[in-house]
Amino acid sequence: MLHITSLNNQQVKDWKKLSLKKERVKQQAYLVEGFHLVEEALEYKKDKVKQVIIREDLLEDENFLRLEIEEERLVIITINIADEMSQTETTQGIFAELEIEPLNFPSSINGPILLLDAVQDPGNVGTMVRTADAAGFQGVFFGKGTVDLYNPKTLRGAQGSHFHLETYEGDLKDFILQFREEGYPVFGTALNEDAVSYKEVFVDEPFALVVGNEGAGINEAIIHELDQNIFIPMHGQSESLNVAVAAGILMFHLTN
Amino acid sequence: MLHITSLNNQQVKDWKKLSLKKERVKQQAYLVEGFHLVEEALEYKKDKVKQVIIREDLLEDENFLRLEIEEERLVIITINIADEMSQTETTQGIFAELEIEPLNFPSSINGPILLLDAVQDPGNVGTMVRTADAAGFQGVFFGKGTVDLYNPKTLRGAQGSHFHLETYEGDLKDFILQFREEGYPVFGTALNEDAVSYKEVFVDEPFALVVGNEGAGINEAIIHELDQNIFIPMHGQSESLNVAVAAGILMFHLTN
Repeated sequence: MLHITSLNNQQVKDWKKLSLKKERVKQQAYLVEGFHLVEEALEYKKDKVKQVIIREDLLEDENFLRLEIEEERLVIITINIADEMSQTETTQGIFAELEIEPLNFPSSINGPILLLDAVQDPGNVGTMVRTADAAGFQGVFFGKGTVDLYNPKTLRGAQGSHFHLETYEGDLKDFILQFREEGYPVFGTALNEDAVSYKEVFVDEPFALVVGNEGAGINEAIIHELDQNIFIPMHGQSESLNVAVAAGILMFHLTN
Repeated sequence: MLHITSLNNQQVKDWKKLSLKKERVKQQAYLVEGFHLVEEALEYKKDKVKQVIIREDLLEDENFLRLEIEEERLVIITINIADEMSQTETTQGIFAELEIEPLNFPSSINGPILLLDAVQDPGNVGTMVRTADAAGFQGVFFGKGTVDLYNPKTLRGAQGSHFHLETYEGDLKDFILQFREEGYPVFGTALNEDAVSYKEVFVDEPFALVVGNEGAGINEAIIHELDQNIFIPMHGQSESLNVAVAAGILMFHLTN
C-alpha cells in the first residue's frame, strides 16, 4: 500500500482540489470524510470507492480495523496531510475517494421524489437528502442552480444518505413534464392563491415534491407545471420556515 | 450622532468582542446583523436597542430610510469597520446592539414550550427557535450545555424569531419538575422501549417537548422525568434525522 508523507505529493494536491466543483467534474471523483461516511461508502458503494485514505496513527484504531479494505486501495498519510485535506475543524483522519456516478433521469418511478429548484445552501440540501432517505423517498433530483451533491458541506449534511437513495440531475421542467405523463402528481411549495394547507393533502401513489430557492422560491416557469401548491400554516409573527424543516414536515406528512 | 472612522476605536473593539459569550455576559449586550434583524429588533424590542450601527454609504439607502431611529441611538461607521464587525461573508452593513434580557423560568404557562438539552450546533438551535415561533410555541428553554441564544450563528438561524417568543434558561430538570406539577405533559425524543410513534400522540393543552444533544441524545437524569417518549418512524437504511428537522416534524404534529 502507498504511504504518502509529503504535502507536495501530486495525489495530495489532487485530493485537496476536490473541494472545488470544477475539479470534481474534471477528476470525476469526490471525497467523503470521517469514519461514518467511509463505512457507509464501503457498505453501499464498494465498487465506486477508488481509495481509502487513513492517517498513519490510526492503523491500529478499532474503528479502522473493522473496515474491510484491500491493501491496493489503501493509502496512508501523515497528520499534516490529513489536516490539510480536512474540511472540518477537527478531522477524524480518514477519507474515501469515490467515483462520481452520472445519473440523469430515473429509469422508472416507484416512489416519491424530491425535486430541488435552485436550492443554494449546501447544509440545507444535505439535510434534505438525509430527510428524504428517512421518509422513504426513491430519490432526489438536483435541478439547475442547486448546489452540488458532492460539495463537502452537502455530503456532511446528508450523513451518507446519498448512498441509500437515487440522485438525479438535469432540467427540472423537462423531468416534471415526463413525470406527469406517467399520471403522478407534482406538488410545489409556492404560496399562491391556489395553494392549500398540507393537512388537506393525502396521496397514496408516487409523487414529486418541488422545493425552491431559499429567497426567491420556485422558478415561475416551473410553478406553471405543478398540479398543486401546498403550504404549512404558521402562527404568530413568523414569516417562514427554514427550507429543510419545511421540506421535512411535508415529506413525512405526504408519505404517511 | 456618532461617526466612527477608526478601527482602533474602543467602541468598535467592544462590539467585535460580542462574538464571544463571555464578553456578551460581561457587557450584557449582543449584536444582530442585517436589515431584517435590525428591523425586527426595532419593531419588537425597541426599548432594548442600545444603538443602531450603519455603514456610511447606506445613509440614503431606502431600507435604512424606512427605519425609525432617534439620532442619539445612531452610529455611523466606515466600510472597513463594518467588514471587521461582520460575521457573514458579505455584510449588509447594518447592525443593532441590544441589551440581553435575563429570563429564567416562565412566569405562567399558556402554550407549548420547547426544551433544549445540551444542543450544541448554533445553526440547529437557531432553526428550532424559528420553527417554534412558526408552530405557535410560547417559548424555548435553553438547558445547560445548550449553545447560547446570542451566538451570532444562532441568531442568524432564528431569523428574528427570538423577538417573537419567550426564551428561558436554567436547570432543565428543575423546570420539568415544576412544569409537571401544573399537570401538563412533558414529551421527550429518547428512543427506548416505552417510546411510541408520534402519530399516536395527540395533545390539546400546553405541553413541553425535550430534544437532546445531536450525538448523545437526552441526558439520563432528564429521561426519568418525562411522561412519554415519542419517535419518528424511519424508512430504509437511514438511522436518524437532523435534530432541527425532527423537532420541526414533532412541533407541527403536536400543535395541530
